[in-house]
Amino acid sequence: MIPVSEALRRILDALPPVPAETVSLPEAWNRVLAAPVAARLTQPPADVSAMDGYAVRAAEAVEGASLAVTGAAPAGHPFAGTVGPGEAVRIFTGGFVPEGADGILLQEDATAEGGRVTVRETVRPGRWIRRRGLDFAAGEELLSPGRRLTARDIGLAAAANHPWLAVHRRPRIGILATGDEIALPGDPLPPGGIVSSNAHALAALVRGAGGDPIILPIVADDSTAIAMAARAAEGCDLLATTGGASVGEHDLVQSALGPQGFALDFWRIAMRPGKPLIWGHLRGVPLLGLPGNPVSALVCGVLFLRPAIARLAGLPAGPAPTRLARLGRALPENDRREDYLRASLEATGADLPVATPFAAQDSSMLKTLARADALVLRAPHAPALAAGETVEIIDLAALGV
Amino acid sequence: MIPVSEALRRILDALPPVPAETVSLPEAWNRVLAAPVAARLTQPPADVSAMDGYAVRAAEAVEGASLAVTGAAPAGHPFAGTVGPGEAVRIFTGGFVPEGADGILLQEDATAEGGRVTVRETVRPGRWIRRRGLDFAAGEELLSPGRRLTARDIGLAAAANHPWLAVHRRPRIGILATGDEIALPGDPLPPGGIVSSNAHALAALVRGAGGDPIILPIVADDSTAIAMAARAAEGCDLLATTGGASVGEHDLVQSALGPQGFALDFWRIAMRPGKPLIWGHLRGVPLLGLPGNPVSALVCGVLFLRPAIARLAGLPAGPAPTRLARLGRALPENDRREDYLRASLEATGADLPVATPFAAQDSSMLKTLARADALVLRAPHAPALAAGETVEIIDLAALGV
Repeated sequence: MIPVSEALRRILDALPPVPAETVSLPEAWNRVLAAPVAARLTQPPADVSAMDGYAVRAAEAVEGASLAVTGAAPAGHPFAGTVGPGEAVRIFTGGFVPEGADGILLQEDATAEGGRVTVRETVRPGRWIRRRGLDFAAGEELLSPGRRLTARDIGLAAAANHPWLAVHRRPRIGILATGDEIALPGDPLPPGGIVSSNAHALAALVRGAGGDPIILPIVADDSTAIAMAARAAEGCDLLATTGGASVGEHDLVQSALGPQGFALDFWRIAMRPGKPLIWGHLRGVPLLGLPGNPVSALVCGVLFLRPAIARLAGLPAGPAPTRLARLGRALPENDRREDYLRASLEATGADLPVATPFAAQDSSMLKTLARADALVLRAPHAPALAAGETVEIIDLAALGV
Repeated sequence: MIPVSEALRRILDALPPVPAETVSLPEAWNRVLAAPVAARLTQPPADVSAMDGYAVRAAEAVEGASLAVTGAAPAGHPFAGTVGPGEAVRIFTGGFVPEGADGILLQEDATAEGGRVTVRETVRPGRWIRRRGLDFAAGEELLSPGRRLTARDIGLAAAANHPWLAVHRRPRIGILATGDEIALPGDPLPPGGIVSSNAHALAALVRGAGGDPIILPIVADDSTAIAMAARAAEGCDLLATTGGASVGEHDLVQSALGPQGFALDFWRIAMRPGKPLIWGHLRGVPLLGLPGNPVSALVCGVLFLRPAIARLAGLPAGPAPTRLARLGRALPENDRREDYLRASLEATGADLPVATPFAAQDSSMLKTLARADALVLRAPHAPALAAGETVEIIDLAALGV
């Protein structure tokens, strides 16, 4: 059995980012940038006013002075002339500061009457002027590859005049559920059968991680059928299998896929839930064999499949993000397997949220999993903890899982 | 000027959830459930084995006993007979426990040879048996309306045999950018013009909040054009406008939309950035008028538009989620306006993340906004704080904003 961190490292090291595609700006949100975005112009393009008021020569604009208003400079309509001695130009937020002017008389510090304006508060040179290039200069790199694009990034790319962006395409993740006993929701259920839940739960996890899930038809516990289905996934960037519990997951994948050229890397990890986890390559396609039971499949999905998709998508890869919480109840010492306890999570106003592990951690219970907001992490041989102590958690709902 | 909380309450109180639509299970991830999901079957459907081993009569299965193996019960293939005295049935995880058996002899506690199995560890009655209905019983309500569906919820709905779910449709949010000076990215730029960034940034924010953004063509600072564009948004669940700075935002919306039947609720809030914010209804369509400058537009989008979309989408509505961080530098006392400081956010291993507000908070700087990971909240008249003290933040990247 290998530790979780070692398993994750071996998975991530084996995965290259998928190639890029061009998408329109509105499609680029939440995608991973594949090429740098440099500014195509300077912003602001000229010195502009930060407020509504009057563009003036600061040296003259002392309290009590009266200036002739010779024009206006709203945003988008630069004043073509110059502000000469004794003159002022009406200006609005974003308007270009006309030649000759070096200060802004605020609207609330001015009294306008009959084509003239009286200064009520002395103007400081340069005040309320946003200098050309304050935000960015043409040619400057604004966004670097490997970044998941936020709404703010989209705004910045727009301002830098980019209608298109190069992003990594969504990794295609094949999902193959196996088992004699499972049927799709709404389909006729064989005697002794149960409804398949893993494929759809994993597809949602894939979508939430920015991947493109391809749910393959369910296959029975039959080596030939599994081998054929797995080969159908050759166009995928990664194939995730789940199930095969009835004959032992390792045996099934090995016996079905071995003759098809499956190269196993490892298959057992020191964790709970989810000990059996297969990792290898089938004719060049990375294959992650997840446990068949729904809770283990989802937990392994969070710990291994999500980081794998992030790596394929071009993100800097690492373990699932954790945060801190306070334990809602005491926990005994842990054994040698890394443990992931399903827990409720309760927000508190001014302190850390409280994570309370459920008493029943049976790995078949989907309802309990759906009620859990978080996984509480327990390192191998972690000491006993009292209620109120700090623990690391994975916030499942925040991940959309 | 009204406080942020009062403004948000007035916005949310005015918005009803949008109607429901039926979607297939894989489309339901991250959507908001509109009708309860009840279990259509009992899970597990019978007593099942939690492990691979042998189904036995516990009273007989004492250390050293030898039992005749009379059949097998893999998952999906129930054993039709009964486990009689002196008998055992091979069973696998998920297999139905055959009649007569009341315990599971684990594979690793058994030695099988020539059609018989020898017990190496005495079996406890009921141990390793998952009882019928352990997870859920037919008719039980598993998921309640108003919940944003996670991957786990999708798995649970699948297991409960639901191929379709009723979810609120995505709220349609019209986005109307106004301004003589702005042009779309890649389009010819007029003299004195800048590239429009608000509409695309807000569209991304809407998408991240689960809404369906409709970017309306840009309109110039012209009352008739604005009025016509706003009327084109009558099919929207909410219309967000941005800009109009060159003639004063309040004036523009009032003068353009007043004659069209616009009913103003409020238009100034005690916050920074973002003081001008318009809220009202245009012929029944809720209208949120956001400031024209990009930083204020985004911050107001986070504080007001995101919660509004959540409410429209059928979620329990409330303010933007906050979490705790430690201040990376000291802050002076705040004035009477609620403040939202752009800050970097640095994860620390075992403690809270560190939020360091930027020195320059000019609301025109998109690059600074894109670099910010968080907004640090400062209540009106909040006292000065030293570095290391705890503050509430809004994690922008976590929201996809």
